Amino acid sequence: MKYDLKDLVPIKYPIVQAPMLGVTTPGMVAAVSNAGGLGSLPLGGMAPDKARMLIRQTRQATNRPFAVNLFAHPLASSAVDTDQIKKMEDLLHSIYSTYGLNFERKRLEDYQFYNHTHLLDLLLEEQVSIVSFTFGLLEAESTQILKEKGVTLIGTATSVKEALLLEESGVDALVAQGFEAGGHRGTFLESEPLPQVGLISLLPQIVDQVSIPVIAAGGLFDHRSVKAVFALGAAAAQLGTYFIAADESAASQGYKDMLLKSNETSTQLTRAFTGRWARGIKNSLMEQLEQSGLEFPAYTYQNSITSGLREFGKTNDLPELLSLWAGQSAAKTSYGSTSQLFKDLINKIQNDTNPIF
Amino acid sequence: MKYDLKDLVPIKYPIVQAPMLGVTTPGMVAAVSNAGGLGSLPLGGMAPDKARMLIRQTRQATNRPFAVNLFAHPLASSAVDTDQIKKMEDLLHSIYSTYGLNFERKRLEDYQFYNHTHLLDLLLEEQVSIVSFTFGLLEAESTQILKEKGVTLIGTATSVKEALLLEESGVDALVAQGFEAGGHRGTFLESEPLPQVGLISLLPQIVDQVSIPVIAAGGLFDHRSVKAVFALGAAAAQLGTYFIAADESAASQGYKDMLLKSNETSTQLTRAFTGRWARGIKNSLMEQLEQSGLEFPAYTYQNSITSGLREFGKTNDLPELLSLWAGQSAAKTSYGSTSQLFKDLINKIQNDTNPIF
Repeated sequence: MKYDLKDLVPIKYPIVQAPMLGVTTPGMVAAVSNAGGLGSLPLGGMAPDKARMLIRQTRQATNRPFAVNLFAHPLASSAVDTDQIKKMEDLLHSIYSTYGLNFERKRLEDYQFYNHTHLLDLLLEEQVSIVSFTFGLLEAESTQILKEKGVTLIGTATSVKEALLLEESGVDALVAQGFEAGGHRGTFLESEPLPQVGLISLLPQIVDQVSIPVIAAGGLFDHRSVKAVFALGAAAAQLGTYFIAADESAASQGYKDMLLKSNETSTQLTRAFTGRWARGIKNSLMEQLEQSGLEFPAYTYQNSITSGLREFGKTNDLPELLSLWAGQSAAKTSYGSTSQLFKDLINKIQNDTNPIF
Repeated sequence: MKYDLKDLVPIKYPIVQAPMLGVTTPGMVAAVSNAGGLGSLPLGGMAPDKARMLIRQTRQATNRPFAVNLFAHPLASSAVDTDQIKKMEDLLHSIYSTYGLNFERKRLEDYQFYNHTHLLDLLLEEQVSIVSFTFGLLEAESTQILKEKGVTLIGTATSVKEALLLEESGVDALVAQGFEAGGHRGTFLESEPLPQVGLISLLPQIVDQVSIPVIAAGGLFDHRSVKAVFALGAAAAQLGTYFIAADESAASQGYKDMLLKSNETSTQLTRAFTGRWARGIKNSLMEQLEQSGLEFPAYTYQNSITSGLREFGKTNDLPELLSLWAGQSAAKTSYGSTSQLFKDLINKIQNDTNPIF
């Protein structure tokens, strides 16, 4: 059985813009959806009020469907290692000092984290029609409520096992995230070694095991790579890094420039920035954290500990202080409007000798 | 410019059987070449007499062209760390003891290594027509001599930079080896971090930078993955793991069984067996060596130190004592004759809705 994402959601082209927290804006989402693709609005870890505002901003800019993306990890970290956190805070304190900044330590009880459970009511109120999520499975009850309201659910898998669990949980489709992908790995079976499977191997092995549409993600950037994933059985292609240098992106100019100067070996997987494995361009902050020899506190503690410095880097356009999330095809990124980048991709696909759509 | 390996070497199908030292036999090479593909005979690290015998055995079984594969690393390891070697020998000594085996320490001067330079005369004498190689570049003089004799040269790259160096050195084609590939990484720019780029990202980035045919390798196992790499610009697809469980394979039954029982996350990259990065199925020996905390002596010392134990594992069919080289699509392997496996692949490609050949 060959699936096409167009049969599941009313879009013109089976091309998904990946949700990229800190990069994707309502303007980017709307531009992709208006151009006939599926935009994805990242709401992971967000407080409900902010999420509501972003959904409404996106709605104002498009009347086409778009997905909202949630972080579906459990909220309570099972083992908070306060000593680990203290050592990491000490390191950050010393890095802050070199920039003349003051690092404010938090009490453990002052960390405030949000996950998908905080946003479910909001999504129903705002009548969101497509929900994608990463870092886990939705609870059976949440799945049931959303499906009763006709919401399309899209999970994220980095292994066949995760794909099977997602299918069993009742999702309508899933993203197969290859090793090449930028940003966080969606991995949620954390008791096992991190799956690091190249998309060309992972995708057909997932497609052969599940009976729902599979969206391919990781390293995609042009008509050739989109055609390749369709040959491998994908129902759609998801591109993230491809849109980071877009006009509508919230990435700083320095981040965008780093992408365009990068090559296929510029990125690496790291837990340094957030405590979760993610792929980004190597820079000073990544190296300094990696070389500290310290253990990284679990997500979302580490994310919170480093966020102030990364905000400073963003505000002051210091790319060496950012998490420069990017996939292995980052070097192929271009500047331009989201709409133009999307059209360029569609044109290349349609001008191919044997176009797939 | 779109290349096809068939325009470079007289084969019927642009499908290459990867050279797999310890697995590929003359019978496997001949079966692939007889079926219209390009068989590759691994001669890396071999003494000339043995290499000559294997070439002649292959010739007796086919009059179709096949490639011979060399290891093109420099011979002299720049820094032999005798203390590192001694500690590793101590560990092997203790592992040997648990199997009632006697580990014989070698004097450094008794290690005997061969590389491509020992085989060049032989290749000319035997009038070999296609030479592929990995782990390096051929010297300008060797390249010139081989090319004057009309030999087709095929190098191996794991990054764009390596691909450009190979092209500049005068090869006629190159293999782009993705992160998914089983066995040794062909990496030769060893002063830099190991390139770990997924094929879907690496292949088009290499294709866009060079003006010679690029053969895609890593994770390929069926008509879909072959079609995918052609969409990405490959001139041919190279499959290795796909043939490991073949009747003509020298792999032990236990090794073959481990492949068929594996899944997409069963393999990992390790330097434990040979001192060079290679991908294989995780097993006891890999874990024991990895968890020893010892530094691994450089290739080919470490290869030599562990080879006796791995030979014992092979002879006694103890897969936990082998280097179980395999790519990330190992789970898709089948038993059967090489000829049948090759025909199955071609049939699947030709029965595809939009066949590529």
